[in-house]
Amino acid sequence: MSTNSNAPSSATKSGVCFPLGFTASGVAAGLKASGSLDLALVANNGSNLASAAVFTTNRVVAEPVIYTRDLMKDHTVTHVILNSGNANACTGARGMQDVHSTVAALASEAGVEHTKIAVCSTGVIGEYMDTDRLTRAIPALVKEANEDGANLAAQAIMTTDTVTKEVEIERDGWRIGGMAKGAGMFAPAMATMLCVITTDVKISEDVLVRTLSRAVDVSFNRTDTDGCMSTNDTVIVLASGESGIEPDEAEFGAQLEVACRDLAGKLRDDAEGASHSIDITVTQASTEEAAVEVARAVSRSNLVKTAIFGNDPNWGRILSQIGTVDAKVAPFDVNDVNVSINGVQICRNGGIGEPKDELDLAASRLVSIEIELGAGDAHATVYTTDLTHDYVHENSAYTT
Amino acid sequence: MSTNSNAPSSATKSGVCFPLGFTASGVAAGLKASGSLDLALVANNGSNLASAAVFTTNRVVAEPVIYTRDLMKDHTVTHVILNSGNANACTGARGMQDVHSTVAALASEAGVEHTKIAVCSTGVIGEYMDTDRLTRAIPALVKEANEDGANLAAQAIMTTDTVTKEVEIERDGWRIGGMAKGAGMFAPAMATMLCVITTDVKISEDVLVRTLSRAVDVSFNRTDTDGCMSTNDTVIVLASGESGIEPDEAEFGAQLEVACRDLAGKLRDDAEGASHSIDITVTQASTEEAAVEVARAVSRSNLVKTAIFGNDPNWGRILSQIGTVDAKVAPFDVNDVNVSINGVQICRNGGIGEPKDELDLAASRLVSIEIELGAGDAHATVYTTDLTHDYVHENSAYTT
Repeated sequence: MSTNSNAPSSATKSGVCFPLGFTASGVAAGLKASGSLDLALVANNGSNLASAAVFTTNRVVAEPVIYTRDLMKDHTVTHVILNSGNANACTGARGMQDVHSTVAALASEAGVEHTKIAVCSTGVIGEYMDTDRLTRAIPALVKEANEDGANLAAQAIMTTDTVTKEVEIERDGWRIGGMAKGAGMFAPAMATMLCVITTDVKISEDVLVRTLSRAVDVSFNRTDTDGCMSTNDTVIVLASGESGIEPDEAEFGAQLEVACRDLAGKLRDDAEGASHSIDITVTQASTEEAAVEVARAVSRSNLVKTAIFGNDPNWGRILSQIGTVDAKVAPFDVNDVNVSINGVQICRNGGIGEPKDELDLAASRLVSIEIELGAGDAHATVYTTDLTHDYVHENSAYTT
Repeated sequence: MSTNSNAPSSATKSGVCFPLGFTASGVAAGLKASGSLDLALVANNGSNLASAAVFTTNRVVAEPVIYTRDLMKDHTVTHVILNSGNANACTGARGMQDVHSTVAALASEAGVEHTKIAVCSTGVIGEYMDTDRLTRAIPALVKEANEDGANLAAQAIMTTDTVTKEVEIERDGWRIGGMAKGAGMFAPAMATMLCVITTDVKISEDVLVRTLSRAVDVSFNRTDTDGCMSTNDTVIVLASGESGIEPDEAEFGAQLEVACRDLAGKLRDDAEGASHSIDITVTQASTEEAAVEVARAVSRSNLVKTAIFGNDPNWGRILSQIGTVDAKVAPFDVNDVNVSINGVQICRNGGIGEPKDELDLAASRLVSIEIELGAGDAHATVYTTDLTHDYVHENSAYTT
């Protein structure tokens, strides 16, 4: 009567294995001194394949980014191999050789073409990989890949992350899943943001590229915990077609946004040393770009971020930061600007509003800052965190 | 034989009173809860007057900045009144009325025209001034102004500063003096940078404006400890003509630069909670602007600044930050970039250089980062500090 309790149940098919057609694994190759899992594989076994990716816009990029960015232009990727423990960045010709060795070892072991394999790395910049260790672990990585391996893969890409980050979305007959790592943000130079998203929809490569671009733009690209941009940031989406369903572009795009926002939120909430998550929403802006620029300027102010850490609703620091944005990008009159924190309008028309003592920022982790520019109808939200002693501690002690 | 020991000696004529023709004072008006000195006056009593000023470029500026910026367009200023304890920023019509009350009280007490009085404020943003207290202190401020009052004035403009900042420069028959306050930098929203420079040269207003603009550009404007820009930053220079000497523009400009660099260096070295001063010099840039942009990008990286706090010469974070600069502003090829810290070239041609263990950043307060872009002949230096636990502490606890 009862099913075999060892059989995989659908409940264990988390993250990248939630949609049909995917297997994953995570093993310890010895790249991390701790001996923790540090090598992950996601494989698309579907029949109707598509892939797309978005990379860091940093001019200084890691060797695996150079490799994978070129690869994605002309080829559908089915396998993504990801390692933590070393970013393989600023490692030049030897670093690129290490990427090729990794691809060759996986191609041989898994029996797939070189051109179907993407490579992602995260960890310390400017040190050579121990690629012998990595390639020795590939047979186990391939052998262990199965439909229940998603969480192990999510564990294997962690660096300073304290929890794994996975997402599962189910619609009428089709699914999106995903995993991400990152504990600073888009993107700290050592805690790179990596993300693999999977789906079992039937979809053209063109639509996948377009929808991913928009989804990343409003999620990962608006999450900014320390203003630093990594050399390694990568978001890859793989579609298997195994659901047999082809949703329309708007419907799929909306759910891909939900998935990306969910993972971006998990990255932000696990940000290094943060004690508050801060949502900065700018409304009444002339354009969406203007709203983003104003919100981003506030999100990058160490004075605002330390004030929030101190549970101090210091709107003067917010207003001062708003004033640094170029008037050509974001036209507004400071006398029209209102600032609310957690719903209390403490700055009205550029001056003193409600009393600050109506606010108790210590009461919740999330702090919502709303800025009304009085200059139009556009809006945007940028997601950040406070600046704490723990941030300084973690980032001053990382490599030494 | 001996002179009266109570007579002012030239040794006590520090700061703004070092050149001929100036008096100064500092009193406690009660704006600071501590009861410390909080109101300063600098008066130009010369016969051949000129003045010039540079203000914050923030779009949100304090009421005294709005007032003084307009005033300086058409008038030669002879008196500067400065208060600490309250920035009088984001205070609207009432704040502007407080500026007018201050000017009226000083004009009446000192017997000078309203249009010769500049006003500077520093302290918390978004709270109304106690202008009654301020104006009640003006009679004492005027009465006590004398040639030995410069250090009291320098004390009275301090906020989170731990030391007064003054400068004295003597050339062949003429002098420059000055005082400044600020303990974050150009400029933290609450620790505004204020500076008054005096000189006894004979000089035209045009030359004074031109030389001040350049001097501020290469000193205060390249000192950047937390990327935040104040609502109140003001640099005012007053010339008395009392030396009777009119140096040529280049000679005067060079010494004004020396004075501004000296004060900017003192601000940086007193930066809130810093344990290291960091000089970031970019060489081989295509233009001076490109050099400044690259240096400034590095100076604003919390990851670089926390690494230096941890005495970690993490060149990967520096290179990653260099990569964020727009290629149109600063063209270079990352494979040509070298990075040296304290003279050790730890990154060569965009990759691994000398071993990091040759460096001991704990050995000195100053850390020199030199970045060679391999893209031209221009260079620039930006001055910053590390990011420490004390910075977070001071800035999370300032107003609450």
